[in-house]
Amino acid sequence: MTRQELIALIRQRQSFLCIGLDTDPAKMPSHLQTDPDGIFHFNRAIIDATIDLCIAYKPNLAFYEALGLDGLRQLKLTMDYLHSLTQPVFTIADAKRGDIGNTSERYARAFLDPAGDFNFDALTVAPYMGIDSVQPFTAIEGKWVILLALTSNRGAADFQLTPDPNGTPLYQRVLQTSRQWGNTGNMMYVVGATQATMLTEVRRIVPDSFLLVPGVGAQGGSLDEVCRNGLNADCGLIVNSSRGIIYASSGADFAEAARAEALKLQQQMAQHLHR
Amino acid sequence: MTRQELIALIRQRQSFLCIGLDTDPAKMPSHLQTDPDGIFHFNRAIIDATIDLCIAYKPNLAFYEALGLDGLRQLKLTMDYLHSLTQPVFTIADAKRGDIGNTSERYARAFLDPAGDFNFDALTVAPYMGIDSVQPFTAIEGKWVILLALTSNRGAADFQLTPDPNGTPLYQRVLQTSRQWGNTGNMMYVVGATQATMLTEVRRIVPDSFLLVPGVGAQGGSLDEVCRNGLNADCGLIVNSSRGIIYASSGADFAEAARAEALKLQQQMAQHLHR
Repeated sequence: MTRQELIALIRQRQSFLCIGLDTDPAKMPSHLQTDPDGIFHFNRAIIDATIDLCIAYKPNLAFYEALGLDGLRQLKLTMDYLHSLTQPVFTIADAKRGDIGNTSERYARAFLDPAGDFNFDALTVAPYMGIDSVQPFTAIEGKWVILLALTSNRGAADFQLTPDPNGTPLYQRVLQTSRQWGNTGNMMYVVGATQATMLTEVRRIVPDSFLLVPGVGAQGGSLDEVCRNGLNADCGLIVNSSRGIIYASSGADFAEAARAEALKLQQQMAQHLHR
Repeated sequence: MTRQELIALIRQRQSFLCIGLDTDPAKMPSHLQTDPDGIFHFNRAIIDATIDLCIAYKPNLAFYEALGLDGLRQLKLTMDYLHSLTQPVFTIADAKRGDIGNTSERYARAFLDPAGDFNFDALTVAPYMGIDSVQPFTAIEGKWVILLALTSNRGAADFQLTPDPNGTPLYQRVLQTSRQWGNTGNMMYVVGATQATMLTEVRRIVPDSFLLVPGVGAQGGSLDEVCRNGLNADCGLIVNSSRGIIYASSGADFAEAARAEALKLQQQMAQHLHR
């Protein structure tokens, strides 16, 4: 999906919501726990209930890999289902990969190749290994790399905030340096919502880039604060919620409950888009 | 595998060689390229030809993921085969994972869980997200996290060498900070052989830790220099070679050619262990 298509989708759905498919068998309703395709059926029900309210889905690869080959089989069923729908939606592999150039090329193939098993639009990538670990993901037309800048977890403070001799924290160096590696049509950044005031600093360095903002909801971030500091003329935000939506109910009504939570966020987002 | 078992294995085989199973179908002999289990059969032949000369195998996950579910199926066959052998060997998932705590727990389960599909001894992890992204991997008895410190690629210079206000480069901060997150029995570090002179600095900070050293051979590092700067009383090194061994010949004699290359390295290593 191109940048223009993504912006058009945001305007059409009046939403910049991404739903994280961090699907945990132990948290699914009991009738799906005994279903051999339960994870796929859970995801499909969430997708059917929410696709008109969101613009992206983000499966977290760890949740599928933790179940071995069977988990990845059900991820493929989920992606095949998304690709079969007439409604367009942006898809993000939250995989946080990154390796030397010839290896990152393989990861690009694994997740972004239109002929591959998954064919995601975008992949999250860790910046620690630098330019050649990132550029292979920007080489595929219409596909995106989403580089970690500032994450929403406790450990973000360990290295991401470390200043250089000029006082520039590492996450800002990552933004400054990586701007040269791609463009606003193939590179986004992860910026955690729990650090929303730092969004102002991020926007100073990458005013036009899309930002993927996790951490709204269960991790404690505020949508209003994120919008105040992060929205730009093209929206420029993809805000993710995972647990707050997909586990809104643990009963048989999980999909309806997910829709209700997604609708609340979509309605808040629509207001922000009109300000 | 515990630290004591690893040290005993190194003494017994007179080797600290790790063979990287970066198996690329396009580089396999032609008779394996048409075999549906060709990757597994290639790996099995390499293992059979080299297991008495090395102490570890390191499949690079990207090479398997690039082939989709079928690639991961053949990785599982490879791991099942390694677990079926009477000769012990250390196994490293070169996957460079790392995510927020509840997600890293899933990656730990995916790769290190004895009841999982793979049951590796160790997993490579990127440090960018800090403490909670790393600690879940040290929580499983007898398993290891191998944290990226200084990598062997061009992009290593982008952020890993960035100094803090005291002049300490990021990779040294990673070593200093992460020492508190585990111990020498559950945490190792990746230190690229192409930067062998920096091994002296690394050894100053982590004198007793095992170091996984990629980049010997195809990437240009020198084994002698690595040993001069990196060996400690318990050996403390696992030196990896991938392409130089597994693609030593592209013909039907690939396994014999791999053995010959592995033997050269093992013989050099035996000499270094006796110095």
